[in-house]
Amino acid sequence: MSRQLKNISGFPEWLPEVKAIEDSCVNTVQRIYESHGFVAIETPAVELLETLTAKGVGDKEIYTLRRLAAEEGDEAELGLHFDLTVPFARYVAAHFNDLVFPFRRYQLQKVWRGERPQKGRFREFYQFDVDIVAREDLPLSCDAEVVSLLGKCLCALNIGTPVLKLNNRKLLIGYYEGIGVQESVIFQVIGVIDKLAKIGVEEVRKQLLALGLSEKTSNDVLEFSGRIILAQDFESALSTLSLPSKLAEEGAKEVLDVLALVSESLLPNIEIQFQIARGLDYYTGTIVESEVREYPEFGSVGSGGRYDGLVSEYLSQRVPGVGVSLGITRIMDLIIKNKIFTPNKRSSAQVLIAVLNEEQRREANEHADDLRSAGINTEVYFKSPKLGKQIDYAAKKGIPHVIFIGESLEVKDITSGEQQSYSSPQELLKIIEQYTCRK
Amino acid sequence: MSRQLKNISGFPEWLPEVKAIEDSCVNTVQRIYESHGFVAIETPAVELLETLTAKGVGDKEIYTLRRLAAEEGDEAELGLHFDLTVPFARYVAAHFNDLVFPFRRYQLQKVWRGERPQKGRFREFYQFDVDIVAREDLPLSCDAEVVSLLGKCLCALNIGTPVLKLNNRKLLIGYYEGIGVQESVIFQVIGVIDKLAKIGVEEVRKQLLALGLSEKTSNDVLEFSGRIILAQDFESALSTLSLPSKLAEEGAKEVLDVLALVSESLLPNIEIQFQIARGLDYYTGTIVESEVREYPEFGSVGSGGRYDGLVSEYLSQRVPGVGVSLGITRIMDLIIKNKIFTPNKRSSAQVLIAVLNEEQRREANEHADDLRSAGINTEVYFKSPKLGKQIDYAAKKGIPHVIFIGESLEVKDITSGEQQSYSSPQELLKIIEQYTCRK
Repeated sequence: MSRQLKNISGFPEWLPEVKAIEDSCVNTVQRIYESHGFVAIETPAVELLETLTAKGVGDKEIYTLRRLAAEEGDEAELGLHFDLTVPFARYVAAHFNDLVFPFRRYQLQKVWRGERPQKGRFREFYQFDVDIVAREDLPLSCDAEVVSLLGKCLCALNIGTPVLKLNNRKLLIGYYEGIGVQESVIFQVIGVIDKLAKIGVEEVRKQLLALGLSEKTSNDVLEFSGRIILAQDFESALSTLSLPSKLAEEGAKEVLDVLALVSESLLPNIEIQFQIARGLDYYTGTIVESEVREYPEFGSVGSGGRYDGLVSEYLSQRVPGVGVSLGITRIMDLIIKNKIFTPNKRSSAQVLIAVLNEEQRREANEHADDLRSAGINTEVYFKSPKLGKQIDYAAKKGIPHVIFIGESLEVKDITSGEQQSYSSPQELLKIIEQYTCRK
Repeated sequence: MSRQLKNISGFPEWLPEVKAIEDSCVNTVQRIYESHGFVAIETPAVELLETLTAKGVGDKEIYTLRRLAAEEGDEAELGLHFDLTVPFARYVAAHFNDLVFPFRRYQLQKVWRGERPQKGRFREFYQFDVDIVAREDLPLSCDAEVVSLLGKCLCALNIGTPVLKLNNRKLLIGYYEGIGVQESVIFQVIGVIDKLAKIGVEEVRKQLLALGLSEKTSNDVLEFSGRIILAQDFESALSTLSLPSKLAEEGAKEVLDVLALVSESLLPNIEIQFQIARGLDYYTGTIVESEVREYPEFGSVGSGGRYDGLVSEYLSQRVPGVGVSLGITRIMDLIIKNKIFTPNKRSSAQVLIAVLNEEQRREANEHADDLRSAGINTEVYFKSPKLGKQIDYAAKKGIPHVIFIGESLEVKDITSGEQQSYSSPQELLKIIEQYTCRK
């Protein structure tokens, strides 16, 4: 009796009516991914630690696994994945000869990060990724497609105005190199700039100086990072930017090519932001983050980019990839805290069959199965108390109609109190439809 | 270059066309659970170790979690759940005041068991649970409903003839006690009998003797465990059974009550098998396992039972529960090894738009969005090689139709080679329908 109930911080858990909202968001995204012909895959929750900690992947807080009954000295070999891109790259390499390229897949799974718990940080959360990989050569039209998908999904979720922040790793690295940042610290500079929104200009300046950048170079990096250019202005803005290297020019050209093929209706939602750097080392070209304009405090709700070297870590050929990842749990957090939708679905049932007495239960069960065969989700009340109590239960669960089996079959709409008889599941369907349309 | 690709034994991973079969199985089960009015919930992958190892839960191989960056001496506090019943009981207690009872939920999640890898054993697998819990009192009609659901789902999956093996813990414990098994070893005897099918009669006899049972009692337990009675014969068989205790009689009465309310069409699939014991300690009444008659070597594909004390571990009131769990991964293993379905879905796209040259891509993208708005899943080919190559790609992915944008819009059915023009997405829909019906 009375084991303690402790909350585990960072591992969200919803009530059924909130889970129903999450399911509906997931369905919206899945429908869009499938409308573009992507198929689902899934990878195990775990990968070998050597896969998760490999060069190019960068530093993430990883949870390792050990058997509770492990013997002293048994080393942990497995870790929970911290994103879906690294497992996807490993999957593509592992099944290379069984896949048809370009391989276009979506993947919805939980990921885990063993961070010290802090306000608003999740240690377990859902990501919903979509990626395209090809042999040898992946055109920028694919970057445009996944960026468009990110925008399309955020629009369809109906949670506010999406802002897509676009950048390019070549542009970034080319620019940094061109203004004098040493190659050996480029990725560390990217890591510092990635934290700009979180830690602010002064702290970033301090960290850049600590990396050995001169005062002038630090200022140049910061000034460059502060620029935000609307998509429609980018081409003309380029002439005033004076890009300091071939690589930077190549990156800028890639951004232009992506913009030229992105869904036209999304262009007003796209900004080129040079402070978008992405913390992960595996990106090589296009990078994108997104937020909801009305709720900037929730940060990025979806992000991604181009990774040309990740799959090739395992294979002796080029397998470039590009993809984006929607932060479903982050989006749920935003929805819940801002009360964007009203949680109300506490049951899947459309009708509750009231049971007048236990002798009637078999008949009620049989009628329920008839209704289910006609596509009506049906619950039979589990006991046979007074009818008022059974109607109360339906109201509390949000089941809109209650059925009574007597001389005739009767259905009551519990909002209006109206009641009428029916003789077949089909007739009941029509009555339910009428009730529902009137609301 | 060339990191090694090692297979992690016990963690299954499917190709997209096999994953599509799994998704279709999951949808079938979900539709049935929802047709009975159950709602979805989800719990974190982890629980506190003290929850997973508590008294009444029994011994399971648990994976514990530690941060890779953990300091020496940091103790593991979290473990991956090994089933969904224990987390569900904790969930019900944690959200007790926000739930409406009887609470009817379904839950599809992976579970993990840190077993030493061996042939056919999964260390990560999907379970799809359905449960009912109530305050104070949960009638046996609920046991009948979940047993019916198990049978219904297995029938709908269309993988062979389901056999539901029904038993009752009260009957089992009452019988063992009545023939002289000491109360202190009852759960160990249950654990041994649970392994009967796996380790055989002689090994079980040895283990029973080792628990201190007399030769006669061991024989009695084994003889009792050997009995299989068809559901329709159970009532008459009871008179010849001579149950040795009140508790055993109570259990037998419960079995009868459940049989009286189970879906009538399932009765021929139900057998009362006294060797069904269930390894987990938390069961208190009805217990059920199932297999597919044509593939007994795959063992139980779904199981469950009544647990009257699990939620009450946290609360000072009675919260009895009953549920069943479908072993989705075990079922997939059965489907794959016996080639029950043919994997063929390598794309979600219904049409592929061929791209004649890169100048045409914008137009192709726009037409694709029109088709998607009309509900047609559409992929635009990612490059613009010779048409034959693009048609080949569609064939390999199983995309049935290819579209060409020229003077007019044309659609080709790649099975028949037939080609015709269309002027609107609606017209295309009709043509696709015709092609599809003819197959």
